[in-house]
Amino acid sequence: RIRDTHAAISGVEKSISELMTPAPAILPPESTAAEALAFLVKTKDIADITYIYVTDNQTLVGVVVMRDLILAKPAQTLADIMIAEPFAFALDTPIRDAISEVLSRHYPCYPVVDADGTLIGIVRSWKLYERIAAEISGQAGAQVGVAREEQINTPILSAFRMRHPWLQVNLLTAFAAAFVVGLFEDTITRIVALAVFLPVLAGQSGNTGCQAMAITLRGLTLGKLRDYPVHRLLRKEILLGALNGVLSGAVAGIAMTLYALATGATQPVMLGVVIIVAMTGACIGSGLFGVLVPLTLKRFGADPATASSIFLTTFTDILGMGLMLLLATTLIN
Amino acid sequence: RIRDTHAAISGVEKSISELMTPAPAILPPESTAAEALAFLVKTKDIADITYIYVTDNQTLVGVVVMRDLILAKPAQTLADIMIAEPFAFALDTPIRDAISEVLSRHYPCYPVVDADGTLIGIVRSWKLYERIAAEISGQAGAQVGVAREEQINTPILSAFRMRHPWLQVNLLTAFAAAFVVGLFEDTITRIVALAVFLPVLAGQSGNTGCQAMAITLRGLTLGKLRDYPVHRLLRKEILLGALNGVLSGAVAGIAMTLYALATGATQPVMLGVVIIVAMTGACIGSGLFGVLVPLTLKRFGADPATASSIFLTTFTDILGMGLMLLLATTLIN
Repeated sequence: RIRDTHAAISGVEKSISELMTPAPAILPPESTAAEALAFLVKTKDIADITYIYVTDNQTLVGVVVMRDLILAKPAQTLADIMIAEPFAFALDTPIRDAISEVLSRHYPCYPVVDADGTLIGIVRSWKLYERIAAEISGQAGAQVGVAREEQINTPILSAFRMRHPWLQVNLLTAFAAAFVVGLFEDTITRIVALAVFLPVLAGQSGNTGCQAMAITLRGLTLGKLRDYPVHRLLRKEILLGALNGVLSGAVAGIAMTLYALATGATQPVMLGVVIIVAMTGACIGSGLFGVLVPLTLKRFGADPATASSIFLTTFTDILGMGLMLLLATTLIN
Repeated sequence: RIRDTHAAISGVEKSISELMTPAPAILPPESTAAEALAFLVKTKDIADITYIYVTDNQTLVGVVVMRDLILAKPAQTLADIMIAEPFAFALDTPIRDAISEVLSRHYPCYPVVDADGTLIGIVRSWKLYERIAAEISGQAGAQVGVAREEQINTPILSAFRMRHPWLQVNLLTAFAAAFVVGLFEDTITRIVALAVFLPVLAGQSGNTGCQAMAITLRGLTLGKLRDYPVHRLLRKEILLGALNGVLSGAVAGIAMTLYALATGATQPVMLGVVIIVAMTGACIGSGLFGVLVPLTLKRFGADPATASSIFLTTFTDILGMGLMLLLATTLIN
């Protein structure tokens, strides 16, 4: 059990088949209830049996629930009392795809069949659920470049090897944002108050975008984006970005005007207006990118959470700080 | 079922008792297996019965598994075949505390008892697992101020009401970082290349800290921090911060020196050294705060994920940008 748990948590498994165990009770459809009971009495590992699997030439045709076996007359056949055409996972079902299926079916045990419908084994739901918990609990970390197999007790050098490459990617993307800021060196030299507000624009648009992204990722994880059109989500998050941006921008704009007044900067009111407009624009972009980054990762076959926060904040940093500096350069002499 | 699912996902429930349904089969310990079978045959809702609960004067004393009932002799009593002193949840067990219990026990159904051991009802594990998935899938969002009850289809105004207050908190914390930057206006006016590297320091130390925090939160969620001493986690994350900081700092320091050379800034090599030292210091602090922020939130009885990213990046912003500007002010004439 401890090894199972470890494997399940480690995140190594890719398809359902790797969580599979042999089916403990397989009988033909013409067996009687009395024969099935006799079979159970003889079985050593009866504690492992949740269902009896009914196969015809190795093809899964039904499952028998214990309660129905108790209530059956001894001469009834399993074909009479079985649940026919039961749900089964395919051998190559990716574990990530099984999550929303399991969250809506709630069976204690799932049969696994190959392409011909041959019963290959079973997957116990607790193994799947444990895997689901591990998978989902790794999502927040995946966004900032922590591998899903890393746990609290992962050795430091393994953790370093898995995390550091993403930190270098983050650094590269930070250079992109720095390059944009660098284009406006003259403006910053002229109005140094803008440097003080660089982290405000970057931090605020980044957090607004991470909110939109969190909801998008949650929808993908729980299978809710299948029934919800993407354009509606985009419209909602862009609107939310605008609303949040105007209000954050108003507060930040007032702060900028006060700061400019206190430090004797040029055109304090216009500086405040620059902040409001830049913040609103940046937060609208945050809503857009917050939805698009995970969906784009998914479209390219990647885990939609992987490094998503690193990619997102690149866009929001460039947009937030770039807009502020561009507007200031254009509007303030 | 759909309403159950909705309630489970909405995140409103706080304790186990809110996911509870009445126990469908309760019998005294002196009942025989034959009597129990007769009881099952008469029961309308037999499909709901996973276990028979054995109570003595309403106190839960055991559970009978269907498989054991099938194998029992008709005259055997339930007291003979039951699992005695079964695990049960208390009525007021918080759902969040039940997660690690459920992830290690894997029962299809849990009895719920009051303080006197009286059987009050049962909780089906799928309801708990669904709640666990909803709970954990809300963690990434909780870190940036998205309420755990928000889903993809939450109306825009509700989403706004729940998200905006945390964005204003984020803005306030950004002002704190801006205030620190503002203390060094003269230095920035003198060496404008520092303004260009402000977002690099903030972004890099923030992401490094979010990695440490993700692993800490995962450990808390999956119950792994109970067996793993906090001081070991702290030491590991501080070391990882140092290692990641030195290497990120080296790359960023070289970039700063090249940038300073290209733009004709003063003391380009010393500027590079400032970046290496500041980045290393900031990333060491990131490891420290990444562990301490969620543990502190938990100690104060809050959800350890709530707005944790907002609090963490306040520290990392101030530390990263503050260190860089302080070192530059001290070391560069």
